[in-house]
This record gives sequence, structure tokens and C-alpha cells, in this order.
Amino acid sequence: MFKLSVMRTCCAIFMLCFMFHINSLSVCAQTHLPVIPLPATAVQGAGNLLVDHGLQVVFEGYTEPRLERARTRFFDTLSRETGILEVPAPPFKEEKFVIKTTGPSATVQQLGEDESYHLEISTTGALLTAPNPLGVLHGLQTFLQLVHSTPEGYAVAAVTIDDKPRFPWRGLMIDAGRHFMPLDIIRQNLNGMEAVKMNVFHWHLSEDQGFRIESKTFPLLQEKGSDGLYYTQDQVRGILEYARDRGIRVVPEFDMPGHATSWFVGYPNLASGSGPYQIERHWGVFDPAMDPSRESTYQFLDQFIGEMTALFPDSYFHIGGDECNGKEWDANPRIKQYMQTHHIQDDAALQAYFTGRVQKLVTKRHKITVGWDEVLQPDTPHDVVIQSWRGQDSLAEAARRGYRGILSSGYYVDLNQSAADHYAVDPLVNSTVALSPAQEANILGGEATMWTEFVSPENVNSRIWPRTAAIAERLWSARDVKDINSMYQRLDTLSQKLAYYGLPYQSASEQMLRRLSGYNDPTALQILASVVQPPRDYAREGLKPYDAFSSLNRLVDMVPPESDKAREFNEVASRIATGKTVFGDWQKARQWLVLWRDNDAVLQPSLVKSALTVELVPLSRNLSQAATIGLFALDALQNSLPVSAETRKKQLSELKGFEKPEAVLVNMILPGVEVLVQAARAH
Amino acid sequence: MFKLSVMRTCCAIFMLCFMFHINSLSVCAQTHLPVIPLPATAVQGAGNLLVDHGLQVVFEGYTEPRLERARTRFFDTLSRETGILEVPAPPFKEEKFVIKTTGPSATVQQLGEDESYHLEISTTGALLTAPNPLGVLHGLQTFLQLVHSTPEGYAVAAVTIDDKPRFPWRGLMIDAGRHFMPLDIIRQNLNGMEAVKMNVFHWHLSEDQGFRIESKTFPLLQEKGSDGLYYTQDQVRGILEYARDRGIRVVPEFDMPGHATSWFVGYPNLASGSGPYQIERHWGVFDPAMDPSRESTYQFLDQFIGEMTALFPDSYFHIGGDECNGKEWDANPRIKQYMQTHHIQDDAALQAYFTGRVQKLVTKRHKITVGWDEVLQPDTPHDVVIQSWRGQDSLAEAARRGYRGILSSGYYVDLNQSAADHYAVDPLVNSTVALSPAQEANILGGEATMWTEFVSPENVNSRIWPRTAAIAERLWSARDVKDINSMYQRLDTLSQKLAYYGLPYQSASEQMLRRLSGYNDPTALQILASVVQPPRDYAREGLKPYDAFSSLNRLVDMVPPESDKAREFNEVASRIATGKTVFGDWQKARQWLVLWRDNDAVLQPSLVKSALTVELVPLSRNLSQAATIGLFALDALQNSLPVSAETRKKQLSELKGFEKPEAVLVNMILPGVEVLVQAARAH
Repeated sequence: MFKLSVMRTCCAIFMLCFMFHINSLSVCAQTHLPVIPLPATAVQGAGNLLVDHGLQVVFEGYTEPRLERARTRFFDTLSRETGILEVPAPPFKEEKFVIKTTGPSATVQQLGEDESYHLEISTTGALLTAPNPLGVLHGLQTFLQLVHSTPEGYAVAAVTIDDKPRFPWRGLMIDAGRHFMPLDIIRQNLNGMEAVKMNVFHWHLSEDQGFRIESKTFPLLQEKGSDGLYYTQDQVRGILEYARDRGIRVVPEFDMPGHATSWFVGYPNLASGSGPYQIERHWGVFDPAMDPSRESTYQFLDQFIGEMTALFPDSYFHIGGDECNGKEWDANPRIKQYMQTHHIQDDAALQAYFTGRVQKLVTKRHKITVGWDEVLQPDTPHDVVIQSWRGQDSLAEAARRGYRGILSSGYYVDLNQSAADHYAVDPLVNSTVALSPAQEANILGGEATMWTEFVSPENVNSRIWPRTAAIAERLWSARDVKDINSMYQRLDTLSQKLAYYGLPYQSASEQMLRRLSGYNDPTALQILASVVQPPRDYAREGLKPYDAFSSLNRLVDMVPPESDKAREFNEVASRIATGKTVFGDWQKARQWLVLWRDNDAVLQPSLVKSALTVELVPLSRNLSQAATIGLFALDALQNSLPVSAETRKKQLSELKGFEKPEAVLVNMILPGVEVLVQAARAH
Repeated sequence: MFKLSVMRTCCAIFMLCFMFHINSLSVCAQTHLPVIPLPATAVQGAGNLLVDHGLQVVFEGYTEPRLERARTRFFDTLSRETGILEVPAPPFKEEKFVIKTTGPSATVQQLGEDESYHLEISTTGALLTAPNPLGVLHGLQTFLQLVHSTPEGYAVAAVTIDDKPRFPWRGLMIDAGRHFMPLDIIRQNLNGMEAVKMNVFHWHLSEDQGFRIESKTFPLLQEKGSDGLYYTQDQVRGILEYARDRGIRVVPEFDMPGHATSWFVGYPNLASGSGPYQIERHWGVFDPAMDPSRESTYQFLDQFIGEMTALFPDSYFHIGGDECNGKEWDANPRIKQYMQTHHIQDDAALQAYFTGRVQKLVTKRHKITVGWDEVLQPDTPHDVVIQSWRGQDSLAEAARRGYRGILSSGYYVDLNQSAADHYAVDPLVNSTVALSPAQEANILGGEATMWTEFVSPENVNSRIWPRTAAIAERLWSARDVKDINSMYQRLDTLSQKLAYYGLPYQSASEQMLRRLSGYNDPTALQILASVVQPPRDYAREGLKPYDAFSSLNRLVDMVPPESDKAREFNEVASRIATGKTVFGDWQKARQWLVLWRDNDAVLQPSLVKSALTVELVPLSRNLSQAATIGLFALDALQNSLPVSAETRKKQLSELKGFEKPEAVLVNMILPGVEVLVQAARAH
């Protein structure tokens, strides 16, 4: 329990806000609110509400057990976030946090339900109103993120927020097929999603490498297709409740007709080839595909979809549909014959036929089909929702044709792109297809997608977070909220708080680094780790062979997908090169370059002691050499010394050489160093 | 699954072992084994056993479900410890880890059961033999601790170990009364206990501040005495199974006749005062005590003990008995009258009478009574076990009189003493009472005791660990194992691995520091945190008022009870002062002192921004000033410069001033700085 009391001094958060016009105030307040995603509107109040023992959270109007549980969770989180013990039966304060809810939300959470809330914080209390519990859940998260430390104690600055999402579908997909993700991981991600107001958990449950859910109708699916790593239906029901408590829908995906090898281990007759099939142990696109030519396939799927749609209450049901290469179809004379008989021109048309049949089975269960880009064919029914991995054009084209869609292209968090890259991708912007407002409304939102070839339960959270929060903001906040610096600043705070929000991903990475350093002082390894990154996009596969047996315990598996330190250095270098330095830039650049130059000497002796670190020898050496070049350029710039063309050329060529990934890692300070070398030329 | 394969190069661990005599080899191998507690005997083999995918662990002889679960847990831990994924159905290697068990252990784990094991690791496989599953559990932990990184991959050095404990009672007590400790915390500590082969979890379940277990017979105990914070009987049964799986007995304690206020909230007639009673919210020794003069008290306790002895299967049952001040007895005329009638001389005799009656109730349930020192009176029955908080003399005196006893004095991990302090306390050494071998056998072992006035679930693990591992070694390993440097070295490795053994205490402290730094760069705060400690023993209570409502979220609550950095600095300073430096000492001392001197300037601006850090202003400033003095002395010593008596006096007096705790924290580098200043005088 926490105390509310009055603090009349103005909060530092708003110190920069001197404008008097309401709109300006609102924008300024927003930008400085330590909240991600930024609310639709926020107007600064005066003073602070102190948070301590004895806070009462009181419901007025409609209530339900889910709201009671949300209150308990709110206090738990507040207690972790502040270290203020939850004290039994303290003397309550007069100031209250009042929550008014008009009525219930839908029994099964629906796409497009009202998620808005109004949050008013003053020095004497707080008021949260919402038409239904979904808004309450969001408002509580906003309150929690607003809590910060002040000279008077923990407090929330007075503010009035009116908030609602821009898009109704704000999702995170986790692939539990390639690497099984235990329930703890799923729950932790639902915690993270709640913190940033995401509302769709897309659970990718079957893959070539594993069938991850218990079927009571077809038990060989999990018995032969999962290595014992699957969710029981009871566990799934637990996750469904857990998600609903957090305002999150759960959309299951069963990928078909391709990406389905694991189904065929137990049920080879479903497949188009002759079998027998084994669980796939490699990554990539494989030949096995369901047989669209046999009625038994649809009978099987009818029963299976019946079972799964009964288990998952959501109105949407994802049937995958991506990357079926058709090779098994082409190789099967019976299927070729079938295509001829039914006037099916090619594999694409065969897949369209299959999708059409399956879509009817889904409709029969009163669900709406979702599928990847490939399911969109000339006669695809208009209630099918298209999830686009191909891009905004493909999505807009679908919307123009009257299909609803969600964007995932640009939100693939497994590709080691930066938060800024994801943040820049807007489902409604940058398409070459012109859309009417009505057509724009067909674009429901987007989903961050976590494919799991290169992650294990140990590091998956550090790949999804914190960058997914930038995607969450893109999907929740206004189109014109796009200040990258503000986003990074708020992302940094959030990422440090996520452990208290139930997602302890940082400590896992730190522990992995300790392990990699053989439990010796990990400082030098940390310094190296802080400026390297796994290569972007699909480059990793080409650098080293990986399969399902590969351990993911090397440096590449523990560094964040985005180096904050290198980003900061590259910005400093760019300011130095363009003569736009701010205070401290020169000193910072020098300090870091010296640190990186000297780190190799400290680190090298230990690297050869372990099979897992010996591959880092060139990476560490190259960092040192790049830093040496950077220091040379910095000296030249600072002292306006001439640099000969020959030296410059040699240095640039050396830097070029360091761009080659070592140990599947890229040195991220190279752009900054190159900028310095190039600038030194100008003098 | 993990692969065993052969590595013929000799392991670095044994590089320092050049002796050929078997005994010397054994001692040397032991000292360098990265295992805590050190085994009884260990003989080095040649080469390494590589650990990778595909290791088979095969049971021969007796097996049981507990052993199967232990194998699963072994693979889980090995996977976390190495980052080697547990791969389903890999191609198995020929080399095997064979476990041979002769037969079962007792249905209910008994004091003094055979816990020995024999572990033989060669380049071609491993063999673990034990008379019963208890030894297997211990041997698996030894194997896990032996795993380390080599240039060829993860490996275990070839070795033959014969091991068994010195004492049969190696316990950890956790006080769940003062601050309730959730099930997760209990399980994490059982994980830690298993890792260091402790075998008794002593669960302190009732206190003035809380009654922490469900009674079905007397439900008002938990309903009125716990603020809702108690363990259900189902949860307790879960913990009992969890502990048994790890070779750990669970001894419950119900403290009586004192420390029992929480019982009286629901059942005031049990008490000697007139009531009504409230849950106690302060710390200390309080007046409320059970009424020994009423038969109804014993009728209540008979039923209660009946219920609890049925729930807890262990043969031992702890009735507390400590710190009853007798004031309620003295103030109650009816009790005074009762004493007169029954010729009871004084309060001590009255407590003895009470204990005697309760002990009969325990015996009636076929259990053996355990109690704190106070229960030992002239006519205490000889099967009562005495737990000594008073010291080795008191314990030895009990043993001389034929009582069995366990030592806790010296093992109070709540008192912020060093691991070395605890390590130096031997249950059989330093007593002034001479004992025969038979009498020595009465001393069963000891228990680390974690009282919880000043800890919450957030930081309790960092108070118990890693120091409790030093106590575990004292109780398991031979009497002559007492090399402090070796202990600290092995403790350091263990403490970094504990997260993988299921006890993630370091990350919790790190996260608390991030919170305290307001999610800004915590480096400067970490530097301060690394050289300060809470004051030892009971000093904390005097420095600041605390009660059950106090939040434990300040720096004092997150720094470890023992500063490793300060210990290292003080050792370096001492070597410098005595002219016995080793390579790097001068440089280290200078680097650290400069770091500490300059840290204050970085840290000060942020300290005043939070109510939780403003108290650190003088602490940080004093550290800087002490470091400045240290640097002055270091300069004088290194350059043989004279220091005037006046300067020296002034510096020593300044240092004296810094000894006063600030923010309930003590600056631990002061002894080292003083040593330098004193040494500078000599020149």
C-alpha cells in the first residue's frame, strides 16, 4: 500500500516547458513525459503527487475480478519499482487513486474495442476513468511509468492525459516452433507487452522444427513432432487467462501447407511426399508440404481446427501460408494429375485452392482467417486478414483491394536492426499505393515478429526488448510522434525498468557475459561487447553454419542487437566532423577511443583460455587498431594538423578491412572512425 | 544432453601441482579444486573430460523417481552453466556418466544417514557411486562445480574424489516471521543449499510480527496473525518435497513461550497478559508470553503440535524458547500464585516447567525437541537438542552434560560479518570446556541463521549468500581445511555461478542499484557501493529507527554485507606498508585511490536529486577525502618522502572522523588508508 501526499514544487520533467498555449504545453508535456508509448494528449499540471505507503486504489462504478487482480499487480509493480515495501494495514491517507469504469469489455476481447482512458493526477490524488477495463489496464501502466524519484521521495508529476491507440492491432509474434519457448518466457513477454500497451500476442505454434501444442484429437502431433517440448492445453488456457488479464488477445498460428514437417512425423499421410519424416534440425525453407489433393487432408484439418478454435477464444485464427516451395507437389504424380483434373495452373494456384478450402474450415468455426502475404490470391474471400512480411506496398495493395491487413515487414526484431529503423516504419506511410481514408482503415496495425533460429530461451527476451517498445509506440502514438532522441531516451529508462515490470532481460545478458569470461573480471569483455553487434538482416546464416543443435553461448548471443555505445560515439564523431560539437564531445570521443585502443592488451591473454572466446582475438585486435586510427584523426582535427592523402588512404583501407565480421560480430564504431578520418582530410 | 569426449591435455587447475607423493597430490588437488565445500579427499588424474551435447547419464543398480528428477535437474543446471543447449535426441557419445546406487535412503530423511559418495572422472567417462541417493545428489553437485571453460571447450578435469561430511547437521535457518519470505525465496535458498551440500532447512515460522503457516485446527492463528502472509499446508508440502528432492530435511520452529505475540491476536487466552493483542510492528524483545499456568495452554499446544508434527515428517521439532523476558508473568497475580503453589522459584524455572510440559507433547508425537540455549535447564530430558546462540562454551557445556547440540553463534549471517569470520568458527574448536571424543560426537554441526528485521524478499538472498557457503564448508570439510585465500577464491566463483544453480541474487542487487540511481548511469554509485558496508553486529538498530513499515530500498540495503573490493585494497595496503608487495600492488593501490578520490565530483550532483540518495552526500565526500589522504601517504612511501608528525596526526584524526557511519554505512577502506599513513611515518 502506498501513500499519496502533496508536493508543491514543480517537477523537473516539465522544467523545459515555458510555453503558455495549451497545444504547445500539451506537445511539450508529451515529449518530456517518461512514458512509452507517448499518450495522445497530455497537459501538465502543477506540483507532484507523492507516492508512499498508504495509497488507496478505489474502484467506483463497474468492477470485476480482473480489475481486482490488476490492482494487486499494480501494487506489486509499484513496490518493485520503488522498493517501498507493501505494508499490511498501514494508516491510510486521505488522498486516493480513484478508478471509474463504466462497464465491462467484451467477454472475448475483440479487435477495435475501446481502449481509451483519461488519467488526471493532481497533488491531492489521482483519477483514472475509462469506458471499460481495457482502458483501466492501460492507464495503470501509464501511472507506473510516470513514477520517479524526487528530492521529496517517489512521486508522479501532476498531469492530465487523454489517451487512446492509433491502431487497433498492436502485436508481438513469438515463434515457439524453431526453439521452444517455455511458459515463463511467454509470461514475461506478456508482461512487457502490457507495459507498452500491446494487445495481440501472436503465438507461432508449429514449424518444421517442432509442433508445440497438445492435440487431444491427434496426439501424435506433439508426441512425435515436439521432442517432448510442447504446451499442454491446460498450460495454454493459463496463458490465455494471463493475457486476458493484461488486455491482450492471443492469436494462434498453425503454419500450412509448408513449414509443417513436424506434423508429418506422426501423420505422414498429411504430406505430399512419401515419407517417413523426421523433425527438421536445420534452418531454412524445406520441401515438405501438406497434400492439397486428398480429401483426408481437409478432414484432418477440419477436426484439428475444430479442436484449436475451441481452445483459443479469439475471433482470429492464423493459418500461416508462407514459403511453400511446391517441390513435393511437383514431384508427386498424383498431385500433378489432380491439378490437371481440377484445372489448377501452377503451385501458386494450388496453394490458393488449399487456402480456400482451409479458410472455409475456419469460417465454419466462426473465426476469421489470418495469413501471410501468400494467402492473398485473386479470389481470396474478403474477410481474410493479410499479414504482410513483404512490405508496405503489398499491404497497401491489399487494403486497396478491400482486404484488412497488418504490417510485419520492418518489424522483424530477429534481424538486428536498430530501434530507430523499426520506429521509422509506419504502416500508413511510404507506400507507393494511394489509399482513400476508407482503405487506410483496412490497415489494422502491425506486429513485431520474433523468429527463433538464433535465439534460445536464455537470450530471446534481449532480442525482443527493448526495441519492440519502439514498435509499440509507432502503433499506439500519433503519426507525428517521431523524435528519435526522445524515443531513445525513454526507451533507455523503460529498458532499465522492465525487470520491475516482470521482464528481467538485462540480468540474463550480464550473467551470460560473466559465464563467457570464465567468472573472471568481465570488464574488458564488456567493453568489447558494448561496441559490437550481430550483423543485420540475414547475414548471420552465411557466416557460420547453424542448426537446431548449435549452442547459442557465444558473444554474438549475448550482445544487444543494437549497440547504444557505438550509436552515441558515431553521433559524437559526426558532430565533431561537421563542427557542431556540444560540450564534452571532444573529451568523450578521446576517452572512448583510448579505452577501446587499450582494451585489447587487457583482454587478449584471457581470450585464448576458452574455446568460446578464442574467436574474439581478431575482433578485439581490430577494435584496438580502429581506435588507434580514430585517435590519430582526432588529434589531427583538434590540432588542425595536415594528414597526407597517402596516410588517409591507408587508414580508410585498413578500416574497410575491419568491416568484415569476426566471430559473427560487426564492429559498430567504424562509421564514426571513418567520419573522423574523412573530416581530417578537410583540414 | 551433453557429449563426453576425450581431451588429453592437462588442465590448468592442476598446473601448480608438481608433487608426486599421493598425499601431497591429494591435498594440492583439493586446494585447487574449484569446489565448495572441499571434498574429503581428491586425487588428480590425467587429462580432461570434455562436456558437450550427447552426454548420457545412466543409472545402474537402485533407482527411484527422485534420482530421475535429479538427472533432469543436473542437465538443466549444466545447460545454464555452459550455455550448451539441451538438445533433443542428439547422437549419443560412447562415453557415459554412470551412477551406481546401492539402495534407498530412509523414507523420511534421518540425521546421520550416510551421505558419502565416490566420484571418478577420467578422459573416457565418469562414475559416481554412493550407498544411497543422498550421496548421488552431493556427487552431482561436485561434478557441476567442476565444469569449467577450457581452450577445447567445457570440461571437467580427471580426478578421483572420496567424500563425506564432517558433521551430520548442516543447516540454514530463515526467519519468515519478521518479514514474510515468499515460496520463491525459500526454493531459491534450497537450491543454494543443495549446491553446497547443506542438509537442514530450519524454517522459523512464528514470531511476534507474524504467524506464517496455515493451521486448520486453529485458523485464527494465520487469519489474525499474519496480515494474509502465510504458507498454506499445500504449499508447505510442496516445499517439503522440493527439499527432499535435494537431500534436505525441513525442521519447523514455533517459538514459545516468548516471541509469540502473533498467536495471541487470534487466541488471547494463550497469553499471560490481559490483551487484546496486535501484530507487533517493531523489532526487539517484547513482553507477551504464553501462560504456563493454565492447562488450556497445554491443551491448545497438544492439538497444535499434533497438527504440525503430522505435516512435517522430520524427526526433529523446534520449539524456540529464546528471549522470554518474563514481564507478563511477573505482572500477572494468578501466575505468581501458581508459581508459589507449585514451588517454582523464578521465571527461568517457570520457563523450564513450561518447556518440560511442551517437550512431553512433542515426545508424545514421537518427535525430538530442539530449542535454543534457554531450554537447557537442570532437568531437561537428555534427548532435547540444544541450538546455541550463546557460543561454543555453552554448546560444549551441553555436550559435556550429554546433550546433543548445534552451533549457531558465529553463524548469524544477518550481522554483516565477513565470510572469514564465519569460516573461522568451528563447532569443536575454541571452547574452554574439555570434551571427550564421545562428548564431541554430541555436537551435531551448525546452522547459518538469517534473522529478517533488516531484509525483505528483494535482498534477503544477498545477505545469506555467498557467505553461507563458507559456513557450509566449515561444516562439511575437514577441520584442517582453513586456507582463507582459497576459500575466498572459490567463494567468488561460486557466487558468480549461483544464478545458474537457481539462486539469482547478484542481479537483484544490481537492479536495486539501477533503481537507486534513478535509471541514470549507475557507475559512480557502484564505485561508492563497492567499498562500503552496513555496520557489523547490532549497530544498525542504533543508527536509525526501523520497524516493520520501513522500506528497505537505500544503499545500505543493496551493498553486500562484505566489501570484496575493500578487503582486497586493505590487503594490498598492508603488503605495501610491510614491504611485502607483489607485482602490481603499487599500481592497483594508486588506481583505486584515484578512482575513489575523483568519484565524489561525478556522484555529488546526482545525489541530491533523490530523497533516497541525499543521505549519501557525506559518505561520498568522506571517501574522496580518505582517498586523498591515502594517495598522499602512497606518494610519500613510494618516493621515500618525509611526512611531518603534525601532518600525520592531522590525517589520522581526519580518518578517525570518517569512521562514524553515514547513511548506516561504514567506509571499509579506512583500515588500509590508516595502515599507509602509519607506514609513511616510518620513513
